[in-house]
Amino acid sequence: MNSEVTKSLNIGICGLGTVGGGTLALLRENSGEIKHRVGFDLRVTRVATRTLEGKDLLAIEQVSTDVFDVARDASIDIVIETIGGLDPALEVIKEALSRGKHVVTANKALIAEYGNELFALARQNNVALAYESSVAGGIPIIKALREGLAGNKINWLAGIINGTGNFIMSEMASKQRQFDEALKEAQDLGYAEADPTFDVEGIDAAHKLTILGSIAFGIPLQFNKTYTEGISHITPEDISYANELGYCIKHLGIARQSEKGIEMRVHPTLLAKSRLLANVNGVGNAVLVHGNMVGATLYSGPGAGAEATASALVADIIDLARHIKSGISAPVYPALGYVEMHDDLSVIGIEDIEAEYYLRIPAVDRVGVMAKISSILQDHDISIEAVIQKEAISETVPIIILTHTAAEKRLNQAIVAIEALADVTGKINRIRVEPFHGEAT
Amino acid sequence: MNSEVTKSLNIGICGLGTVGGGTLALLRENSGEIKHRVGFDLRVTRVATRTLEGKDLLAIEQVSTDVFDVARDASIDIVIETIGGLDPALEVIKEALSRGKHVVTANKALIAEYGNELFALARQNNVALAYESSVAGGIPIIKALREGLAGNKINWLAGIINGTGNFIMSEMASKQRQFDEALKEAQDLGYAEADPTFDVEGIDAAHKLTILGSIAFGIPLQFNKTYTEGISHITPEDISYANELGYCIKHLGIARQSEKGIEMRVHPTLLAKSRLLANVNGVGNAVLVHGNMVGATLYSGPGAGAEATASALVADIIDLARHIKSGISAPVYPALGYVEMHDDLSVIGIEDIEAEYYLRIPAVDRVGVMAKISSILQDHDISIEAVIQKEAISETVPIIILTHTAAEKRLNQAIVAIEALADVTGKINRIRVEPFHGEAT
Repeated sequence: MNSEVTKSLNIGICGLGTVGGGTLALLRENSGEIKHRVGFDLRVTRVATRTLEGKDLLAIEQVSTDVFDVARDASIDIVIETIGGLDPALEVIKEALSRGKHVVTANKALIAEYGNELFALARQNNVALAYESSVAGGIPIIKALREGLAGNKINWLAGIINGTGNFIMSEMASKQRQFDEALKEAQDLGYAEADPTFDVEGIDAAHKLTILGSIAFGIPLQFNKTYTEGISHITPEDISYANELGYCIKHLGIARQSEKGIEMRVHPTLLAKSRLLANVNGVGNAVLVHGNMVGATLYSGPGAGAEATASALVADIIDLARHIKSGISAPVYPALGYVEMHDDLSVIGIEDIEAEYYLRIPAVDRVGVMAKISSILQDHDISIEAVIQKEAISETVPIIILTHTAAEKRLNQAIVAIEALADVTGKINRIRVEPFHGEAT
Repeated sequence: MNSEVTKSLNIGICGLGTVGGGTLALLRENSGEIKHRVGFDLRVTRVATRTLEGKDLLAIEQVSTDVFDVARDASIDIVIETIGGLDPALEVIKEALSRGKHVVTANKALIAEYGNELFALARQNNVALAYESSVAGGIPIIKALREGLAGNKINWLAGIINGTGNFIMSEMASKQRQFDEALKEAQDLGYAEADPTFDVEGIDAAHKLTILGSIAFGIPLQFNKTYTEGISHITPEDISYANELGYCIKHLGIARQSEKGIEMRVHPTLLAKSRLLANVNGVGNAVLVHGNMVGATLYSGPGAGAEATASALVADIIDLARHIKSGISAPVYPALGYVEMHDDLSVIGIEDIEAEYYLRIPAVDRVGVMAKISSILQDHDISIEAVIQKEAISETVPIIILTHTAAEKRLNQAIVAIEALADVTGKINRIRVEPFHGEAT
């Protein structure tokens, strides 16, 4: 397309739920400002929605109930996929890309699980599959990693990338609530689904971390190799003990390049209360990135919601519009930030990481228990950084141990051995600690 | 240029001081990673430096002592301007742009004061003048505003954008130091220049705010309209009183679109201690941006230093390399983010703003003083939010007043009237308060 001819751009939206409806609303509300930024109008000329009820569709020429109508419409330049889920979103995107249309999506599951295939299809057709809105809502973190920090080798990143989980952890911390109560509160406020599995078991965060890790290290998307642990085993007592030790507990997604390979893991994590990341509460998201040159930079903001997600989605549309206006189709930057991926780098298993650990060990209050536990830890090359052992108010009392850096494999063995002690009365709660070695905000 | 032909790109660096040297070092250190990201080599083929002493120039084919040699070299694709200051940097950039070379600069003074002219020259020659590194060091804030948040109308932004000033304020707060002591500490550590005027009087921050405000609101760069107030009048007592009221004091650059026009102002500011921005300490930088759709997002990280600045500078080089590889020269996005600027928006004077205010009034400890002051404030439509009045330990005791939102013009009149009271013994210290109306991180 020639910049002299392009006076408008036709956009089709598939799915008018929260995100699709929000995108439509944003494009209307800010149309004047966007015209100033881009130089021409972005017009939504077709939408597909299952039901027209309650939808405000003035000025849209064509409305279908079949999402494929949009993907196949020859007049549409950019297809917005806001259907969610895998079916039919995956096929709609393939159809649109195959027909040489750009696609913009907020669908993290789809990018994390089918992105490699879809980006290849986009490349073949010389169009873009843009996905800024799929991670961390309104925070432009994809752009930051892929472009803003492109001069760096990324050492690690750590993010609060699920607002629901962070809300629950914040509620538990500020109001000493049990997990179940905090979850119910999140559901009542509309932050959590009736079936909260995706959020509280860390699957949603793992989708997002898979995407971030791929861009950070130039590796293919490998959702199935991302270690995923939820937050339902965290208790208010854990939060309180962590607090006593100078930490808070956050549900983090961590990606790191270690000597052994790439770590990709989502799990509850102790981090020092003084860090900015520890002070991101409620449904907020934040990603801390450490590059070998820049050091640590932090990106924080709303991680969900119709308007924040639409903000990121429309940023992608504007990006594409600017490309089209410049006379090129495919974006100047590679979808995952790398022209040559690091095929030599592999994602390692959780057993192969090293970390510091918080252990809550339920034990009978008897002389010599601590000595036995210490001895087992020592046998597994694990040294102790701090211990909390309170006066017993009942017959059992938890022993809280904070370890120095240890191999996860050795720690697992030690946990089995400690749990086998006669004086230990139940399962050990183990939470990883993130010291963010190297300076960090 | 055709992507099939482009296998390398020739870079020339003018000035091998801290930033230029850091850029050269980064391009060497991360050359492998950058090749993976871009698909071809970025080679520094020529540098200009006043002195060769102590410079590690291996593998660079040509070294000159005249910076214009680089700007005029026909084999150079991208000129890096890291000379600093206005002369000869301005002429070098003009020379390079006129010859159809892209220019990347970290020179905030030059962009803030001559950017309108230089961007026009770049457009005429269909090349880019890139300046990510000119604001907030390694934080990719230009890209975030111009691209990542492009779907929004920006309501306001507020940033800690001078690391030296923030270090001094942090030292004063954490160690109850006087301004002069903290400044000396900053000088001893190499954070502040022997002549610290640019930093402590807010001129450096005003340069950066001018740039941020222009991108946020789509207005021409207008450094001469940016209100600038330094930090030397802040005392440890002010910090301590602010703390008592729940605030900390930061040297902020604030740009806001109000009903009257655009506010552009750099001054010490009280902000609630609970905010993330209040917890950015030392030489760190952070910018909080409020968009009408996304709400508040925060960008934080190292604001200065050779490596952080080089990180942003090389991000610009990579951006250009990706454009050149795609077969286009000028970047797809407008330099200041807008194709059609908002020529109708003007920057208003500091007298036309509204804010909340902290006032430290030196007064004789006598019955009725507070009543007289209250009466004057009331006469000027200024209502009081909080007062601190301590037991007198000497004859005079400061009265601390926090006001609700008031017109600056009326407040100035009230200050004159209060200072004229017989019981008021000196100048009032006035510090603006930023409540960040609307939700904010």
